[in-house]
Formats: sequence, structure tokens, C-alpha cells
Amino acid sequence: MCGIFAYLNYNVARERRYIMEVLFNGLRRLEYRGYDSSGIAIDNDLSSAAGEGERPYASALPLVFRQEGKIESLVRSVYSEVDAMGLDLEKSFMVHAGIAHTRWATHGVPSPRNSHPQSSGSWDEFLVVHNGIITNYEVLKETLIRHGFTFESDTDTEVIPKLAKFVFDQARGGDQSVTFSQVVIEVIRQLEGAYALIFKSSHYPNELIACRRGSTLILGVKGLTDEKSYAASFGDVKTLTADGQPKELFFSSDLCAIVEHTKNYLAIEDNEVVHLKDGSVSVLKFDYSKEKPASVQRALSVLEMEVEQIKKGNYDHFMQKEIHEQPHSLTTTMRGRLRDKSVVLGGLKDHLKTIRHSRRIIFVGCGTSYNAALAARPFLEELSGIPVTMELASDLLDRKGPIYREDTAVFVSQSGETADTLLALEYALSNGALCVGITNTVGSTLARKTHCGVHINAGCEIGVASTKAYTSQIVVITIMALAIGADSISTQSRRESIINSLSDLPDKVREVLRLDNEMKDLAESLMQMQSLLVFGRGYNYATALEGALKVKEVALTHSEGMLAGEMKHGPLALVDETLPIIVIATRDACFSQQQSVIQQLHARKGRLIVMCSSGDAASVCSGGSCRLIEVPLVADCLQPVINIIPLQLLAYHLTVLRGYDVDQPRNLAKSVTTQ
Amino acid sequence: MCGIFAYLNYNVARERRYIMEVLFNGLRRLEYRGYDSSGIAIDNDLSSAAGEGERPYASALPLVFRQEGKIESLVRSVYSEVDAMGLDLEKSFMVHAGIAHTRWATHGVPSPRNSHPQSSGSWDEFLVVHNGIITNYEVLKETLIRHGFTFESDTDTEVIPKLAKFVFDQARGGDQSVTFSQVVIEVIRQLEGAYALIFKSSHYPNELIACRRGSTLILGVKGLTDEKSYAASFGDVKTLTADGQPKELFFSSDLCAIVEHTKNYLAIEDNEVVHLKDGSVSVLKFDYSKEKPASVQRALSVLEMEVEQIKKGNYDHFMQKEIHEQPHSLTTTMRGRLRDKSVVLGGLKDHLKTIRHSRRIIFVGCGTSYNAALAARPFLEELSGIPVTMELASDLLDRKGPIYREDTAVFVSQSGETADTLLALEYALSNGALCVGITNTVGSTLARKTHCGVHINAGCEIGVASTKAYTSQIVVITIMALAIGADSISTQSRRESIINSLSDLPDKVREVLRLDNEMKDLAESLMQMQSLLVFGRGYNYATALEGALKVKEVALTHSEGMLAGEMKHGPLALVDETLPIIVIATRDACFSQQQSVIQQLHARKGRLIVMCSSGDAASVCSGGSCRLIEVPLVADCLQPVINIIPLQLLAYHLTVLRGYDVDQPRNLAKSVTTQ
Repeated sequence: MCGIFAYLNYNVARERRYIMEVLFNGLRRLEYRGYDSSGIAIDNDLSSAAGEGERPYASALPLVFRQEGKIESLVRSVYSEVDAMGLDLEKSFMVHAGIAHTRWATHGVPSPRNSHPQSSGSWDEFLVVHNGIITNYEVLKETLIRHGFTFESDTDTEVIPKLAKFVFDQARGGDQSVTFSQVVIEVIRQLEGAYALIFKSSHYPNELIACRRGSTLILGVKGLTDEKSYAASFGDVKTLTADGQPKELFFSSDLCAIVEHTKNYLAIEDNEVVHLKDGSVSVLKFDYSKEKPASVQRALSVLEMEVEQIKKGNYDHFMQKEIHEQPHSLTTTMRGRLRDKSVVLGGLKDHLKTIRHSRRIIFVGCGTSYNAALAARPFLEELSGIPVTMELASDLLDRKGPIYREDTAVFVSQSGETADTLLALEYALSNGALCVGITNTVGSTLARKTHCGVHINAGCEIGVASTKAYTSQIVVITIMALAIGADSISTQSRRESIINSLSDLPDKVREVLRLDNEMKDLAESLMQMQSLLVFGRGYNYATALEGALKVKEVALTHSEGMLAGEMKHGPLALVDETLPIIVIATRDACFSQQQSVIQQLHARKGRLIVMCSSGDAASVCSGGSCRLIEVPLVADCLQPVINIIPLQLLAYHLTVLRGYDVDQPRNLAKSVTTQ
Repeated sequence: MCGIFAYLNYNVARERRYIMEVLFNGLRRLEYRGYDSSGIAIDNDLSSAAGEGERPYASALPLVFRQEGKIESLVRSVYSEVDAMGLDLEKSFMVHAGIAHTRWATHGVPSPRNSHPQSSGSWDEFLVVHNGIITNYEVLKETLIRHGFTFESDTDTEVIPKLAKFVFDQARGGDQSVTFSQVVIEVIRQLEGAYALIFKSSHYPNELIACRRGSTLILGVKGLTDEKSYAASFGDVKTLTADGQPKELFFSSDLCAIVEHTKNYLAIEDNEVVHLKDGSVSVLKFDYSKEKPASVQRALSVLEMEVEQIKKGNYDHFMQKEIHEQPHSLTTTMRGRLRDKSVVLGGLKDHLKTIRHSRRIIFVGCGTSYNAALAARPFLEELSGIPVTMELASDLLDRKGPIYREDTAVFVSQSGETADTLLALEYALSNGALCVGITNTVGSTLARKTHCGVHINAGCEIGVASTKAYTSQIVVITIMALAIGADSISTQSRRESIINSLSDLPDKVREVLRLDNEMKDLAESLMQMQSLLVFGRGYNYATALEGALKVKEVALTHSEGMLAGEMKHGPLALVDETLPIIVIATRDACFSQQQSVIQQLHARKGRLIVMCSSGDAASVCSGGSCRLIEVPLVADCLQPVINIIPLQLLAYHLTVLRGYDVDQPRNLAKSVTTQ
């Protein structure tokens, strides 16, 4: 949650309006990470700020704008404020450092004073944008208050700029000269928790410092002279950038806000401090145990992402686009991994033997990623014969559940940055388990810290409600099961038939997507519902949970996914003529049990919507009194990939019909990078 | 689900009105097992039936009454019908056999024609009451239809009396004389599924036959001469009853409907056929492989249950009574099991070594029983160091999850007759796991089929929504964890402190029960809510699930229990000013995480109800803007026992205030004996 962004133009003239728009656009790309308030800081004109009182130091005073609500509300308020103060938007800067932030509230309600940039106090000598949580902020705050600081926000972040000012003042009081990076390193020495930070200071005009621990942070470098292609060379970023050539530099919480500017990027690592000064990039490695940080050499990478991925194209919303591109994303997920009668997973092949001899396989995830693992679990159990345990990451941490060397722990996270999942990973690593990562994000913390893993290659997912990542996760875990079970003769024909089904899957997904209008129609009939139940079992227990979660997340309706077998043990009491109930009853080994569930719901006069295999209408709903969703039949263990899609469409249309925000549902953020 | 009852008076004059009232009362006691329709069959007068047409055989025609709705609706309709037909209620019978049934619909909607007794056709030559499900009824029905039978109901049961008539007619057609038990044994030879059955026939007046497979069935024997105390002697029931003395005989689905008449009872076993004739009880053992059943000797037992247990006393409802008697039921649960520094569990002691060396401990249960195991799981993991896996019984069966000899599977069921749990038990047994039972019902199938186990001794639980059984289950599993971990030195002081806390627990429960009025008040403020969320974590994840389940079951409100750590991964979208949210945040290792959950919900303006430890108000709700439930602090692993109680009270009061039926919630039945 929260997105941070910065833009520094060097040796190239940029008008203030242009700079502001780059910052706003950055925030728009990051908005999915948090959208209850936002802010930017840019430079004022030295002259215009003069008459306002005594200024501590001779440099341009920054202008800080913060606003509650979405980015567009910030944009409006900024333009009306600059208008009111008569600020010259055409003024041109040869070098300028601006920072920006979009927030997902954790400490303190959404409001301007809790928005970022947070400030060191009057004159805004130090400004900070922050993604993450400072866990020891209370003790720092007390200390700073004792030193005379006054706090204005309820945020954990505010201690950071104030601490920077404190460090700066201490050093200056001792008449020492102190560099910007010295100040920042002294600050982060005091911080506990997870963070990505960008610092701006009027004491160090036209410089920026960024650093991280736990949260992702990307640097983008765009050369403005024709001959420059930084990433093609393997050279150190500092050497490359210390050329005085015109360039633009960006910091961002993720690649999405960078890709439209440049493909040259650097994924900043934990404890690295990146200092932008005079157009060049220095990277220092901070170490608690050492007084002085070491300078490190880093090379730029080339981003393999197309700008189209972060645009909506012909669709109204990212969620809609991502639902409809599933035939494509699944193809990408499977590319190069299926052979005629076997599968290839490069990232796992050296560890398959160890996994096959594990005592348990433990899936760890949160939300949709957990559901994907749950969907693929029965097939993995079937092919491996190994007990597969499901763990919600935070529950595993709360319980400190037993994990040992004989266990294989599989961590699933689209972003690869989910805080709970990463903490559970630390826990499993410290207990000696073999740790496998399944993520959509190359270079993510999850990808880096696990022993081995598989990328789902679903492409950038921007809608906060995960859709295409879910189906790709199921397919990847299914392929993983095929790889783990590859040595068994007794399951050979089963494996081959699943591999065949996998090849057909994108076509079947294309087929089920044709239900779009039907689902819109169903959504219209459900507009007024207060609650929704979704019953599934076996392979489609997960479909029930995930379908209900989608409706919760975007349509803001209380929907609950339930194991159909538990219906009689309580939930049946809720059933009456008004409550809509979706029952997933496609053909598999549990079909007859689901038929009997439908009969019992009928006997209680439930308002039924039954999802069944094409042509099965009569078998699931003899009376004709229930609404049907007929989906193509695929292999049992792949059916969840098909079955979730009508429910994704239903959630999407419900949301649009109700007039809610599809891509940025209330209170949620894309990747939950705080605990 | 479904309750069956029969009353046979022998050699003692009983008026028709009295007989009817005994049957009605039996049904009232069993009503918690199912209450959507009911019926009785008694004898008509030979004379009064005469003019109605040609009668096939010379015996009294039975009178069958069936009605939709609860028992009292049957009672009203029976009295009005007998009134209309001018039946003499004062007529006295020296011997009379009546049967009765209360139904929980599985096949066919609740309606008179789907109610029991089900009949063989016109003249009601054979009548049957049935608890369970006949799985092969469709094929039997087809065959019978081909033989000219016409079916009137949608039930699976109707094949049974029709099959009896078919068998009887076949034998009579061949001019053979055939006894009632020969007919019944031929019938059950054809049946598949689970059942408890009682047969009544006009061809065998004043006789009854009962038999069972899977479902519980009890025989009660009441001697009416002073010197008779059947159960005190160890003699065979047949020898004892073939004395021609006046007596009353009862069949019932459980002990609750017997205890007010007699304490001499016999728990009928699978495949036993019990024949009441001329006042004596013959028990035959049916065997598929043998032509002729063997006669078996059975002795009566003495019921250790007081009539008070099945009466409401000063309470308005059984659920209320059972909530309030938890200080007592927990005392009974712990009686004789706690020593100063150790615990004693007779039923487990020979198996502790095996359990300690298991690879996994697997908890299997449904509904509330599952939740109880979940609540005790962290402590068992802590003390045993063994990975503890949770399985919803039906999901384990659907998935056929891997279970092996090295596993210990622990089955939890209040009734010991939950069909899903018993099927999972069969599955685990066939896979060689050590199977442990935890049940409230001595002599239940679960108690008989597991290798070892522990009775929770909570006393008869009649409210359909389980309350006192839940807390006793948690305590028993906690004691089990203490026994399993008893050999470890490092956890000794921890164990001793928990044993101390257990002794104090009943007093603390008494203390938390004082919140009754406060919970009523809270219920009043929540009367209008459409939905409710309950967030818990760690030890109290289960409390969240169970609290929400209670509200679902009895208050018929969509409430959902959630892991607090999952809040950010979707459910947070639902939060607004109107949706009530209960957060359980009593002191334990997860307290600070729960504080941060509360802060985040505050930031989203959630309508909060926070359960905290006494005196913690300021720590959980600084603004004072949330409603508090302050509960006494006990040892962390026992806190779920305390914390569930306010939620039980809340669910109870909500239900009463809304005018719903507390003890017989819509659509539910006490023990779910069908899959």
C-alpha cells in the first residue's frame, strides 16, 4: 500500500507545469496501491517566498500540496491553489527535484495533515514520502517531542523528516558540514520496520535520496541525448550518469510508473541508499554495524514490459481488461513449460527430488493467492501423495505453527511483496524448510528470498481485485504438481490427459468469456441483494471462496464462500426465498453430493443460481426454477480456472452497475506491504 | 436429523388420549432433531372403520395423522380431526402400539404427504417411521412401480413400507405364514444407506419392530409392578420381559425422550432387529451373508441422566439454559482429570506414546466441533511440536486427502453421530491412522469405532445451536494437549500454569455470564443489522468463526467470522459506518496486531464493537468511539472459552428479540446424521 514517486530533471529545461504533470501521472499509475489521499512537493521561486518571514537558510522554499481523496482531487486542488497564489506555471527549471505520494491509510484517518509528503516542521526543511510502516515510531516521537518538536499528524512517517532535521541541526550546531546522504543514513539507523523512502530537502536543493528496507523501490534513468542507452552497457550506474548530459531520473514504488518514460531501471535493494546529485546516481550500502556505508557498483537493467500493459486499451477498467485477457495471460503462463507428455519448470528442476521427499507441502498465502493454492491443492495431493497443508500467512505467524526441515513451504503472492507472506517466509527459512516462491513479479522480494520458484508470467496486473493472476497461479501450481508427480508410472495417463487439457485451456477460457452479457444480466437481477452465498466443494471450494471475495472486494456486498458440505452445519439457517445462493456444480467426482445440496436448498425454497457443465441443466435443476450458468467442461482439476471467470464477470458488472470504483475499491490496496 | 419414537403399553389399561399424549411428548423431546413436519399412527376401533369399504384383513385399521410445521401444529390438527371423526378419546387399550416421527426434510419439501409415518398404500397395512437416508431408493422405487405400486411422496422412505407389503404379499401368495420380523429382515436386506426404522403393521397388531444401521436408536423398558427393576439385573432383556407383567416399552432416536419414563434402556446396535410382541423384547442380529438372523442376548443399562437435564427449568429456552450452565458443565468435563501438576485421561493413556510420535495430528469435524478443535489447535501445536492439520470432514472426503499410518486423526462430534465425521473416520481407519474420538455421547458410533478417545461429559445438549459442548470440547482438547506434552521438561511450568487456570475457569465463566444484560442491550442496538463481521486471530480465530456461526444459526443473520490478518486482503472493502464489526482483542501475543487492526478499522470509520480484557478499554479504543465488551482475562489458550460466551449470549438475545425460534432454528437439525 502507498505509492511513492519522484522526478528529477537534470540539464534540461522543464516548465513547472510539465514537472507537476509528470508527478501527477506517476501518482495516477501508482494510484492502485492506495487512494485515500495524496500529495506532492515541488520548488517555489526564491523571490516570491521572500516577504513571508525570516527564512532559516538561503534556498528555494518547497511548496507542499496535500489533499484527501483520489489523485484527481489533488490535481484540482493544486491547480486552484497555484492559481490563487499566482504561481508561474510556465517558469522553467534546468534542474528540479519533485516528490509525490499516494496513500493507503494505516496510521491516522485520510486527511491532508496525515498525507505525505510529511515535513520536518515550519519551512519544510526536510520532506519525506514513505511506503511501509515504522514500528518504533512511538518511541522516536517521544524523544523528538522532548527535544522540542511538535507533531501535526497521526502518521508514523512524521518522525522521519523531523529526525532528519534533528540530525542536521546537531551536525550544524557542531559546525560540521554534513552531506545529504550522511543525514539520511543517520536517520535510517534509528528506524525499525519496513519502508521505502524518498527525501527532499531545501538544504540540499536539486538533490534526492531514496532508500528502502522491505518495500520495493525502483530507479528509472532516461538519457536525453540520442547516443545514450544506459542499460545496454554493463557499466556502473554512477559512472554512466556522471556525464553531465541532460537526463531525467525517476524513483517509483513499481515499474508501472516508470515504463512510459524509460526502460532503463535499477531495482534498489534492501539497505541501499541512492543519492541523486548533479545528475549522477550514487549507490551506498548501509550497514548497522559499520560507521561508514560502502559505495557499491550497480548496473541498470532493461525493462521487459510494454507500455500497453499499463493502459486500458479498449476497456473501461483494468479489471475488465485483465478478466478478458486471460486466454492470453494463461498462454504466456504455460509458454515453454508444456511438452507432449511432460512439463518443464526450470526454476524448480534442481529441487524436485527434495520436494518429492518432503514430509508435508505447506501452501502459504493471503487472499486470492491463498485461494489459488487451495484450488490446486487436491491435484497436488493426488499426484504427490504428500499431505498438503494450507496456511493463511498471518495465521501461521500468529500461531508460530510447527515447520521443520522436512517440510516444503510454497509461498504464493502476485506482487511478491505481500508483507504477511514475506514474514512467513522468514519464519519458514529460519526453521529450515525448503522455500518455493510463486509470484508474478520478477525481482520481487519473494523471488529473491526463496530457494527456488516459478514465475506465473501473467503480465502486469493493475486492477486491485486480482483476476488473471489467480488463474495463472492455479495453472502454475498444477504444472508444479505435474513436475513433482512426474516420476510415477501409475499416474502417467492422468498426467498426460491434464497436459492435453492445459493446452486447450485458453480456448475454453475464450468460450466461457462469452458469458459476459449473461453475467451482466444476472448482475442486474442481483443489484438489490444485501448478501450472497457461494457454495462449492472439492476442486471448487476455492472457487466459492474466490468468487465471494471478488464480490466483497469490488461490489462491496457481503458475500461469503462456503464449503457446500458445511451447509447443513449452520449456514442452511440463512436460506430463504430472498437470499441469492450460487452453487457450483460442474461435473466431477463430487457432482452427486452437489446435486443433493441443490435438492436440499430447493426443499428450503432457496433462491438458486447454479453453475453447471454445458448440457447439464436438467441434471441440476429439474424444476427449472433456478437460474443457470453453463460453463464448458474441462479436466476436473482445471475446472476452477473456468468456473471463476463468470464470477469475476459478475463481480465486475455488479460494481459498474452500482456505480462503484472497479479498479480502486474502497479501503483496499493492490499489494499489502504492511502487516 | 429426524426423530422417531414409539410407545407400546402391555397389560395395562391406557386411554387413547393418554397414548396420544405420550407420543406427542416424545416428539416434543425429539423436536430439536427436525421440526418441519411430523406425524403419528395409532389404532382405530375395529367397528368404526367397518363401513368404509372392503378391508383386506381382519384387524384394526390404523389412523395416520401427518402435518406440516412444528409438533404443536400436529397436535392441534390431530385433535381437530379426531373431533371431526367422532373418535372416542376415552377408549381404553390393554395393549397398543403407536409410532411417531418429527422430520427434517432431505428428500421432498415439508408437507403432509412427505411426512412420516410413510405407508404401504391404501389401508396403511405397513407403516414406517425413518431417520436417515436410503441411498438406493430410486432403484427400489422403479422396481416397486413395475410391480404396480403407486408412490405418493417424494421421500426416500416410502419404498420401505411398500417393500414390506410386497414381501408380505409374496409370502402370503405362496401360502406361507410369515412373521413380522421375517418381513422386516427381508426388507432391510434390500436397503442401502443409513437408517433407524420403526415398523407398525395391521397384520401384526400390537407388535412393533425397530432396527438400525448408522443412526442411533434406543429401547426403553418400564416395569409397572413394584418389584421390577430390570436394569439392576444382568439378565437378557428377552428373558426379563417375557413375564407377562404390565409394562411400557419405548423406542426413541435418543435418550432425551426416554428419561422421563424410565432409566432402563438398551442402545440398539447396528444390524440388530428388535421385535416387541406380547410384551417381550427379542433381539435378532441381521447378517447379509446369512439366510437366518441369530437371536442375541442383550442386557439393559441404567441411564445416568437426570430428568432435569432435558427440562428447561427456570429458563425460557434450552440454548439459554445451556449457555448459563457452562460453569457446571465445564466442572463436569474436568472432574477427575486434573491433578496438581498433571492431567489424567483414562481413555487416552495407552495411546499417548503413539500420538507423541505421530507425523501429524489431524483434527476432523464439522461446524462448531471443527471450531472447537481450531481454538485448541495452537496450544496442542505448542505443547506437542507436532504439525496439527485442520480438516472439515466433508472436504477431507471430497479430496480424499492423504492420510497414513504415521498420522493421528482426532474426530470431534458432540453427538458422535455426525455422518460426515463418521465417514471421514471410516476413511482414516482404512488408511491405518490412529483414530481418536472426542464426543459428548457415550455409546455413540464415534465412541465405538475410534481406537481411543475422551468423553466431554458436558451433559445432554438440546438447543440446536451448540454452546456448552463447544466450551467443553475446547477444554478436553486442551487437557489432551497437556497429556500429550506431559513428558517435556521445557514446557513444565507452562503446563502447570494452564492446569491452574483450568481450575479457575468455571469461576471466570460465571463472571463473564454476568454480561447477560449488557449483551441483551447490545443485541437491541443491533436488531436492524443486515450483516455482521467478526474478526479474531491466534487463539481467537476460532472464536470469530464460532461467534459468527451462532449468529447465523439462530439469529438468521448473515454474519461471517474472519481471520483478522486477512482483513486487508479483501474484507476491508466492506467496512463503512453502518456495518457492525466485532473485533476480539483480548490480551495475548497477538494483541498489538489486533490494536493495529482496530486502528485501521477506525481509519475507515467502521462501526466497531471491541471485545477486550477487563481494564483494557483505553488500550483498544482511545477515542471512546467504539462499543466495548470487557471480559475477564484467563490463560491465553483458555481465553476462547471465555470469549465465546458473550457472543453466545448476543446470538441468543438477537434471536429472542427478533422473535425467532431459539432452540429450533430454521432449516437446521441437531445432529446431522446424513451426508
